[in-house]
Amino acid sequence: MSGFSFRVEHPAPAGAARTGVFATPHGEVPTPAFMPVGTHGSVKGVLPSALRPLGTRMLLANAYHLHLRPGEDVVRELGGLHAFMGWDGPILTDSGGYQVFSMADLARIDEGGVTFKSIVDGSPVRITPARSVEVQAALGADVAMAFDHCPCDPTDRAAVREATERTHRWLDACVRRHRELGGEDRGQALFGIVQGGAFEDLRRASVEAVCAHDLVGYAIGGVSVGERREDMRLALAAAAPGMPADRPRYLMGIGTPRDFFDAVEAGVDLFDCVTPTRHGRTHQAFTAGGPRNLRNAAFVRDPRPLEEGCDCPTCTGFSRGYLRHLCRTGEMLGATLLTLHNLRFFHRLLDRIREAIPAGRLGALRREVLDAFEAGRASPEAPLSDA
Amino acid sequence: MSGFSFRVEHPAPAGAARTGVFATPHGEVPTPAFMPVGTHGSVKGVLPSALRPLGTRMLLANAYHLHLRPGEDVVRELGGLHAFMGWDGPILTDSGGYQVFSMADLARIDEGGVTFKSIVDGSPVRITPARSVEVQAALGADVAMAFDHCPCDPTDRAAVREATERTHRWLDACVRRHRELGGEDRGQALFGIVQGGAFEDLRRASVEAVCAHDLVGYAIGGVSVGERREDMRLALAAAAPGMPADRPRYLMGIGTPRDFFDAVEAGVDLFDCVTPTRHGRTHQAFTAGGPRNLRNAAFVRDPRPLEEGCDCPTCTGFSRGYLRHLCRTGEMLGATLLTLHNLRFFHRLLDRIREAIPAGRLGALRREVLDAFEAGRASPEAPLSDA
Repeated sequence: MSGFSFRVEHPAPAGAARTGVFATPHGEVPTPAFMPVGTHGSVKGVLPSALRPLGTRMLLANAYHLHLRPGEDVVRELGGLHAFMGWDGPILTDSGGYQVFSMADLARIDEGGVTFKSIVDGSPVRITPARSVEVQAALGADVAMAFDHCPCDPTDRAAVREATERTHRWLDACVRRHRELGGEDRGQALFGIVQGGAFEDLRRASVEAVCAHDLVGYAIGGVSVGERREDMRLALAAAAPGMPADRPRYLMGIGTPRDFFDAVEAGVDLFDCVTPTRHGRTHQAFTAGGPRNLRNAAFVRDPRPLEEGCDCPTCTGFSRGYLRHLCRTGEMLGATLLTLHNLRFFHRLLDRIREAIPAGRLGALRREVLDAFEAGRASPEAPLSDA
Repeated sequence: MSGFSFRVEHPAPAGAARTGVFATPHGEVPTPAFMPVGTHGSVKGVLPSALRPLGTRMLLANAYHLHLRPGEDVVRELGGLHAFMGWDGPILTDSGGYQVFSMADLARIDEGGVTFKSIVDGSPVRITPARSVEVQAALGADVAMAFDHCPCDPTDRAAVREATERTHRWLDACVRRHRELGGEDRGQALFGIVQGGAFEDLRRASVEAVCAHDLVGYAIGGVSVGERREDMRLALAAAAPGMPADRPRYLMGIGTPRDFFDAVEAGVDLFDCVTPTRHGRTHQAFTAGGPRNLRNAAFVRDPRPLEEGCDCPTCTGFSRGYLRHLCRTGEMLGATLLTLHNLRFFHRLLDRIREAIPAGRLGALRREVLDAFEAGRASPEAPLSDA
């Protein structure tokens, strides 16, 4: 694992939760950690220089989107993804499997890969496992993800089985291409992705197949599809225990405060989700007292910070009344300020989780955080949509 | 002028140009100075903490827009405009005269004021000179502008004469109300506005009427209407010499690099314009080598900073290729980064003008800057629209 290592620092006194440090060529990431999403190589509305003070240590970007625009060759010519987007910390690129299946118009899948229409100009695009590895090698993130087949309905057993088994064969191809290109020696790790939908036996079989490859880390995929919390818990319970304890476990596309506790308790180390950034742009905020919809008239004359005690630039500089005004007038700054706060909220929550684990306080923290957060849902200030 | 002063530091060895310092209750502004526009109490896409490093010393906000949303009473309750928007430097509020006449649907004007439909909800709104002063007093900027009648067509003599004479009568009412509310003793100055369109005699008569009031500063209005450079030059030549040399002269709604030189040479001290921010949002950049349209395919693989030698966060952190990518994918960060650069470009230009004046180099600087900028217009990388 040249340039890469993962050391567990504090396993919880009971249970599977642990803190650790994931070391990459671009720096160390204390885990459990949340990775903000910069789909096109930009965390929407936020300067990269603003991310580190919020607590961001590692970012996610999307190989599918960057392949379509501007193209991985352009990113490589401009110095690779770190230089391109002005972020010198660790980066992980999603392979595009999820996007191909969830967004592509008329995607056609065969044993060799996927052919789909570009969402940009409708032109045909072909991605194979080897091609995905090549694209990500050109982008140059610290971590590349295997190209997987993410089943659309995690409860359709036949479809899940087929997709999961294909994912395993594609992983073989990804690992082969990754090694041909130099493996970790060129500064990029490959993570395999466990599929298996909402089926315990398929998840366990997938863990066995995926973890048979000696990889720097492993991910649990397909849990943000459908978004049923029980499916996620089942997938975690079936998959996490069989994944090697000395490698980082990454739960893809998750989540919410409750999800973090569920997953950390199952031994997960890494997360990514668009929630804090997307919700910020739609004027929804995460606070200790529950979700808040900043378009709400209740905030018009509210002089308080969005969240009392929060140390983010939004809460230390502006009132709820001002944020509400920005949201109502459609000012870009409203989206940016709410995104900054939401990211800080996520990072602070993970900070507290990292402190609670070695102290044996994770269960107490869970109750404290979720009780206050859930109680806030009943507030008239809560958002309309689920946060 | 309690809390306010204007001292001319260096009159140019020849001509009317001068450098000075305009002192306000919220700090000093070295002049000539450019004020970025924060219409709704936010410079679009830019955190206030990012403005000072760009060189911003004073901001403009719009009383008309803030009156409609969130209402001046809300701003006052939330601590006044400085606290509301998180900017502790000087602020000037435009009175709304220009907006009422240029944007209001079915504005009806009479001797007492203007009645128009709100652009927000269509409800009827009445603004009189006294009301405008009250609104601005509640907002609490350092400088309030008189409520003027800005003629739509600066070349329609009868209309300009009528609007200009009404502006003088309204100024009497504004000054009266401003004094009743405590005048400068409550930390807010009132600037009068000279009208007179493209007519030399009307401009001169307007200077005489407006400057008969002993005010902290005086503005030249109505020059950004119609946007004919010759009208602006004529207005400057007719108005500026008669305006008191010991008070700041503010040219409203201007401009471009060429405008700055024209106006500074005529003795203007303050400027505001939406150009750097609006152009930033439409992906047009000001550079020493001329305007640039960042959507242009020429930039796809361009590793250079937007402007060589520029010290702004955009030019020191990102390539043209990355900016082009952000613009093409519609990422918010593209608009923000171009806005940051454009503001820095404007402030740097004013910095250079302030240095050139005492050195007797203003004419040389004008040729140097405008020759390079105009030559760049012929570039295939220049924007489609006029910058």
